[in-house]
Amino acid sequence: MNNNMPIGIFDSGLGGLTVLKSLQKKLPNESFVYIGDTQHVPYGNKSKSSIISYSKTLSQFLINEYEVKMIIVACNTASSFAMKTLNKLYDIPIIDVITPLKSFLVSGKHKEIKKIGVIGTYNTIRSQSYEKLFLDTDPSLQVFSKSCPLFVPIIEEGLENHPITQLMIKEYLDPLLAYDIEALILGCTHYPILYNAIVSYLSPNVQIVNSADILSTYIKKFLTETQMSNTSKNCETSLLITDLSQNFNQFASKILNNNFKSISKINLF
Amino acid sequence: MNNNMPIGIFDSGLGGLTVLKSLQKKLPNESFVYIGDTQHVPYGNKSKSSIISYSKTLSQFLINEYEVKMIIVACNTASSFAMKTLNKLYDIPIIDVITPLKSFLVSGKHKEIKKIGVIGTYNTIRSQSYEKLFLDTDPSLQVFSKSCPLFVPIIEEGLENHPITQLMIKEYLDPLLAYDIEALILGCTHYPILYNAIVSYLSPNVQIVNSADILSTYIKKFLTETQMSNTSKNCETSLLITDLSQNFNQFASKILNNNFKSISKINLF
Repeated sequence: MNNNMPIGIFDSGLGGLTVLKSLQKKLPNESFVYIGDTQHVPYGNKSKSSIISYSKTLSQFLINEYEVKMIIVACNTASSFAMKTLNKLYDIPIIDVITPLKSFLVSGKHKEIKKIGVIGTYNTIRSQSYEKLFLDTDPSLQVFSKSCPLFVPIIEEGLENHPITQLMIKEYLDPLLAYDIEALILGCTHYPILYNAIVSYLSPNVQIVNSADILSTYIKKFLTETQMSNTSKNCETSLLITDLSQNFNQFASKILNNNFKSISKINLF
Repeated sequence: MNNNMPIGIFDSGLGGLTVLKSLQKKLPNESFVYIGDTQHVPYGNKSKSSIISYSKTLSQFLINEYEVKMIIVACNTASSFAMKTLNKLYDIPIIDVITPLKSFLVSGKHKEIKKIGVIGTYNTIRSQSYEKLFLDTDPSLQVFSKSCPLFVPIIEEGLENHPITQLMIKEYLDPLLAYDIEALILGCTHYPILYNAIVSYLSPNVQIVNSADILSTYIKKFLTETQMSNTSKNCETSLLITDLSQNFNQFASKILNNNFKSISKINLF
């Protein structure tokens, strides 16, 4: 294992760029290779077996072609469906976007939170990944979930500032707010793009939990503890996509402030 | 060529089932094999080269495995991008969902229409397929287009009766109505599922044009003129999908009133 090799990240499309952005900020000395599977986006409406198959192909490519030292599954749907398979197949650390929330829940200041809302894609919510993790951590927690299937297309189409987004936020969040939730988990890596719109709709009593930030804190600690941090001075970010996508290019420039070397199409499927 | 072989149809997902329904009604003595490419849905945000590649794979499969006598491209995005390639590659008739509108425009009672609105996916609108066809047919026509990227996810998520649909119809159609259009082309095979919602929003002066109905009338005439009609008494409809999809199954049952033999997953990609 060479600590100076990049960290691999994959997602169904552009949503995982919010995770990459957070990682770049927390780990400025690491290199990253990000794949957006734009050929199959969105994952939220694909079958479990297909998502496992795509996740294997993407992971194998990152290992074979980039010799990544670890892989981050920056997609909640893939995190919900593919982790067992990936961890069986590969020796390097593979970290999903859901598990780090466990450490968040048990940290001092969040122990008061008892009612948690979770929003995600249809597949993520149906998998009950968050409920299982939270109730394993603390059986006294109450978890309320809501799938928000239009949020990903709204974001992929760049409509985050459009009035339709306000309407859909009301539509999706009101049923959760009726339960007096104290925290709202953004259970999809696309959703931080709606952060401002969601904040302005919620009362200040409801804490918004961006799993990208929790994940990057977790990864930083993990790299230090396992002595896997990059020690070279050369670090860079490469973006790969499985199908050409103008939306991806525009978002990457905007979200990452052009902090990447290149965007390349790869022929994987 | 065996006239008693089925007609092949493909679409990105479940939208083309509106075309199949119309064909079943107009051609009750024909057999159909329909493929929904649920592994890549939606086509509206995929690249031109990918859509051409998928269209070739789907067509080749219909020809090799089902010996179809003709292929109907029941997807406006594929119709906009892949027809030249498909017609070069294969000898059987391949008919897209856009071209038949030409005969509609020149038919007697529609000659008065001079201002036409077209709605479709981002890719279809960007391709200007409708503008080109209409202006080739009659250069005095005025064509106004609007891409409606959220309609497909709304329909794929089964939200056609949800208040969000009314809001998006207003949002997308108002700019076209400002031009006093006399006809509105539903330039995506998904959109007929929104027919009632759209009708109730438009004034009675605006004629809604469902390309599925125009296509099926065109196909009926084509089969008669080319003496390609099925002469056997055995006819049936088979549905194939490239990825398992609960939404597809539900829609197929509802839209086709269960008028099909089976839904099978195929491993094509």
